[in-house]
Amino acid sequence: MQKFLEEAKKTSRTIANLDAHTKNNVLRQMANALVAHSDYIIEHNSKDMSEGTLNNLSSALLDRLLLTKDRVEAMALAIKQIADQKEPVGRTLEGWITEDGLDIKKISVPIGVIGIIYESRPNVTSDTAALCFKSGNVCVLKGGKEAERSNQAIANVLKQVLEDNKLPTQAISLLPDSSRKGVAKLIKQDKYVDLIVPRGGEALIRYVSENSSVPVIKHDKGLCHIFVDKDAAHNKIIDIAINAKCQRPGVCNSMETLLVHEDIAAYLLPGLYDEFMEHGTQLKGCDETAKYIDVTIATQEDYSTEYLANILNIKVVKNVDEAIEHIATYGSGHSESILSENYTVVNKFLDQVDAACVYANASTRFTDGGAFGLGAEVGISTNKLHSRGPMGINDLTTFKYKIYGKGQVR
Amino acid sequence: MQKFLEEAKKTSRTIANLDAHTKNNVLRQMANALVAHSDYIIEHNSKDMSEGTLNNLSSALLDRLLLTKDRVEAMALAIKQIADQKEPVGRTLEGWITEDGLDIKKISVPIGVIGIIYESRPNVTSDTAALCFKSGNVCVLKGGKEAERSNQAIANVLKQVLEDNKLPTQAISLLPDSSRKGVAKLIKQDKYVDLIVPRGGEALIRYVSENSSVPVIKHDKGLCHIFVDKDAAHNKIIDIAINAKCQRPGVCNSMETLLVHEDIAAYLLPGLYDEFMEHGTQLKGCDETAKYIDVTIATQEDYSTEYLANILNIKVVKNVDEAIEHIATYGSGHSESILSENYTVVNKFLDQVDAACVYANASTRFTDGGAFGLGAEVGISTNKLHSRGPMGINDLTTFKYKIYGKGQVR
Repeated sequence: MQKFLEEAKKTSRTIANLDAHTKNNVLRQMANALVAHSDYIIEHNSKDMSEGTLNNLSSALLDRLLLTKDRVEAMALAIKQIADQKEPVGRTLEGWITEDGLDIKKISVPIGVIGIIYESRPNVTSDTAALCFKSGNVCVLKGGKEAERSNQAIANVLKQVLEDNKLPTQAISLLPDSSRKGVAKLIKQDKYVDLIVPRGGEALIRYVSENSSVPVIKHDKGLCHIFVDKDAAHNKIIDIAINAKCQRPGVCNSMETLLVHEDIAAYLLPGLYDEFMEHGTQLKGCDETAKYIDVTIATQEDYSTEYLANILNIKVVKNVDEAIEHIATYGSGHSESILSENYTVVNKFLDQVDAACVYANASTRFTDGGAFGLGAEVGISTNKLHSRGPMGINDLTTFKYKIYGKGQVR
Repeated sequence: MQKFLEEAKKTSRTIANLDAHTKNNVLRQMANALVAHSDYIIEHNSKDMSEGTLNNLSSALLDRLLLTKDRVEAMALAIKQIADQKEPVGRTLEGWITEDGLDIKKISVPIGVIGIIYESRPNVTSDTAALCFKSGNVCVLKGGKEAERSNQAIANVLKQVLEDNKLPTQAISLLPDSSRKGVAKLIKQDKYVDLIVPRGGEALIRYVSENSSVPVIKHDKGLCHIFVDKDAAHNKIIDIAINAKCQRPGVCNSMETLLVHEDIAAYLLPGLYDEFMEHGTQLKGCDETAKYIDVTIATQEDYSTEYLANILNIKVVKNVDEAIEHIATYGSGHSESILSENYTVVNKFLDQVDAACVYANASTRFTDGGAFGLGAEVGISTNKLHSRGPMGINDLTTFKYKIYGKGQVR
């Protein structure tokens, strides 16, 4: 493992210095190669699928695992879109001349070696490899056990393109020991690995952040709220609430708890109830909510749960302060929204709620690299440092100071 | 401890939302209070001094520990300078409108609760407290055992000012359990602590980065190089080399190894030798160096050592590539410099050397918040992520996305 990571670190110096033209050219070849070798990829995927069926994976999991011609083409298209993005390396982020006459430029540079631990869908393998390559980084990928053959086949196709272009194939690597033990080793190699990005269940993320000596950017849970103020524009409330909960309940930017100002509870809740019933939503609520509509009483645990399902808590609050307080207690710092036409209340909410994304008068569902206009994304960072919210290619760079002197001494 | 940190987290929400006027006003009062209570501070400091003398602390350590009227006044001045700096919170870092018409603004915000672990000089207590307060953060300070009474006295004076202004005194806190066990607990409280900054010896930094579940920004060693290319301007070489090694050998941005292009070794080394002898520098060198001047032979371990003393390794290299390779092997990613008039060689060095600060034709001694024009600094980050190089108040902020909608749903 150490030998392997030492090699990865060495390779990162080559990859960091590739020009944009070379990188984009290689990425487009990778996209074409995936399509050209889709039979090979699908053949290996079907072995994962049979084993998954034997192992009684759920049909949802099997569907996420499955690769078809269309899905491989979508993977290729994603890589082409990554190639089309603006070069993330070498941007001048700031620049100034000091009193001593030093000309300081803060320049974006690749991070180095990035370990990414993920589960499920094999397209993450090609997306992540392409994002890391575009941003001049070496990636060390650790996918899910159930997708092992699929991930290997995809990596083989991408590596072949690197070889054809006389580039080191270690630039895109699968972790050689993909067991739990392999992960345990990886996250201790701070000499060779510059960043670990864990995406997955809470247990994995906790394990990695408690044990890693490498810096970690977590892609943790999204426990998102919408607060409907008494001054909300009535025509927007139901659309946004339904969209945030029901359009895709299984994703991290969907709403788990709706907070309603007490002054409009009596007016709002019955109509909202009818709409949610039509969408098959299971409703839980506080005692006050239960006065107006038929809900099971929500517990503290309910308020702390990321359902990832069509279930919603409703809580009546006195004012924006109580809403902010509730979010500070139960939120996960992902995405929070207020619906209000009141200038002071909106600004208070946006200022005081501590989350990656705070919205006024929009659905939380927009927290996403695509919707933000960042192109493809590595995920949604719930860290506070380095990257926060949707993590695009620019977030896969760090910076260095280049300092141009004229012989200065202190 | 948990109760204490829970309180710190709560306090961070108040401090984060103070306006610049209030913060700067409080900071100026703190500066005045330090001077007004300098007798009280010096009295407690002298108890630390007597105990330090009893415990046989070195005279260098005792000198760093000592507080005098002048030193307290310097601490006050530093706080006033921090008050004078531009407000770091609420800067619009980027902003754009998405295809859906969402108006996204990326806004700098405080990080929250910052734990700082440091040693030695008591002025770090007031500097750090002021930097954290200015940037809207709560600080939890863990200073050195030997300065415990001094740090407590300084914190008491600052806390009194907070109280006089009806602000929560927890905004500036000393870690209640300052033992190793207290630190062990602190670095596991990722629910309440947002960032740990360890400054100190390698053992402390390694312990913290291996065991913390809170993100860590290390202020680690500086093993800095200067490469003298064959096309270096002759009149600059000796000045810069002497400055980088001898002006203040005990600091992290001083040079430990001088790399010399083989074409100019015969010409350069004898003159350089005389200058270093005049400055009392102990010289080690490679076999090639030993052909020209009188040095003990440098070992691999010498090349890996941050001397923090007036000792220098000299190594003759074939070209810029060998210099870059040597730095990649032995450098600590802090500050590296090239002396050359050759455009291509300079750019290659600045592009390919992976360090926080890469210089052309200047001494490495400029890596410093003051010299960079950032004002006071928390230290020099040797991390790659979030903050790299001199860490000023802007590096004590993170960001959130504020998203202004018009009722958008997906």
